[in-house]
Amino acid sequence: MLTLYYAPGSCARAPLIALAEANADYGIEKLDMAQNAQRQAAYLAVNPKGRVPALVTPHGVLTENVAILAYIAQTHPAARLAPLDDPFAFAQMQAFHSYLSSTVHVAHAHGRRAYRWSDDAAAQATMQQKVAQNMLESFQLIESSMLKGPWVMGDAYTVADAYLYTLSGWLEGDGVPLSKLPAIQDHHQRVGARPAVQRALAQEAAGTVQL
Amino acid sequence: MLTLYYAPGSCARAPLIALAEANADYGIEKLDMAQNAQRQAAYLAVNPKGRVPALVTPHGVLTENVAILAYIAQTHPAARLAPLDDPFAFAQMQAFHSYLSSTVHVAHAHGRRAYRWSDDAAAQATMQQKVAQNMLESFQLIESSMLKGPWVMGDAYTVADAYLYTLSGWLEGDGVPLSKLPAIQDHHQRVGARPAVQRALAQEAAGTVQL
Repeated sequence: MLTLYYAPGSCARAPLIALAEANADYGIEKLDMAQNAQRQAAYLAVNPKGRVPALVTPHGVLTENVAILAYIAQTHPAARLAPLDDPFAFAQMQAFHSYLSSTVHVAHAHGRRAYRWSDDAAAQATMQQKVAQNMLESFQLIESSMLKGPWVMGDAYTVADAYLYTLSGWLEGDGVPLSKLPAIQDHHQRVGARPAVQRALAQEAAGTVQL
Repeated sequence: MLTLYYAPGSCARAPLIALAEANADYGIEKLDMAQNAQRQAAYLAVNPKGRVPALVTPHGVLTENVAILAYIAQTHPAARLAPLDDPFAFAQMQAFHSYLSSTVHVAHAHGRRAYRWSDDAAAQATMQQKVAQNMLESFQLIESSMLKGPWVMGDAYTVADAYLYTLSGWLEGDGVPLSKLPAIQDHHQRVGARPAVQRALAQEAAGTVQL
């Protein structure tokens, strides 16, 4: 049994989709971000970082999408959600995940969470103004040099597609029309049409606040 | 044969140490960052991201430390540089790497590379002022909830130690005295004393510019 701590619309959507794709035995725990639940003691006892996602496993708690997505794929090999027998392809997938977490998600976070990196309100406003440019440039690089097609890793659908789908879902809100990125837009639509993704989105929306 | 593209003092020190620890068959290519070599066409053909490190393998190029470090460990199993047979422990190591790349390295980058997230010079100055605080808080969290001791993953030295050593080497320059972080300081000294680390640092310093 696995338990995923998440907040709606956050990057935790990626492991939620992965769990659904894997037909894993899992439950979900929704955090009330509006009440800052991720910074309260009850959740910090689960994840001292005060962020989502966190995945509670029989062996302990895992954080960071890069780790959680690979773990779900490795522990559910029948679902074939990662190139588990090819160290180079596996590393390529991990590199893709790492780019999303350390560059794309960070670019996005300078919108609503600019306070992490500056205490000055005027400075935060200038950071918010650059979000659309940075997101567009990042996804243009994904289109031109990472997305092999039809899926991220080529012919096989992997957890990387769930992660890309989650973050490309932020583009419109960040001021980047999806129509500027035709391959990303096409990918987003194809991932969104998958039955497991539909189930995960319904589950995310139906979750009741636990913390 | 592997080839590591690096710049002295950058986070590419981590995979360079990992290659030395693994007794891998590898060479190095030094980039002249002062000449902005990482943004020139010759290097962009290797790594379109324009960043270091990049590892050229017989199968293609890998980027991102999270991916490169795991790849070196997986392809050199005799060196025992990662918990390769335990998916949970492997995921914990990957989560640690991901925290270093997406939170700690990003906090550090707001010092000299604040221009990535704001075009305004005054705003960039306020971001630089917050670097010491963010670096201290990140490493305090590493001390309190991640570093198992004596090594990152516990009794076994892994590639995670090379990565932590590399980034803890930035603390003094970021305005955080290592003496404020006794467990990190002790770890830094023990990693630095390893023969393979000494070899890697000598190689890093002796490298001649190729690009």
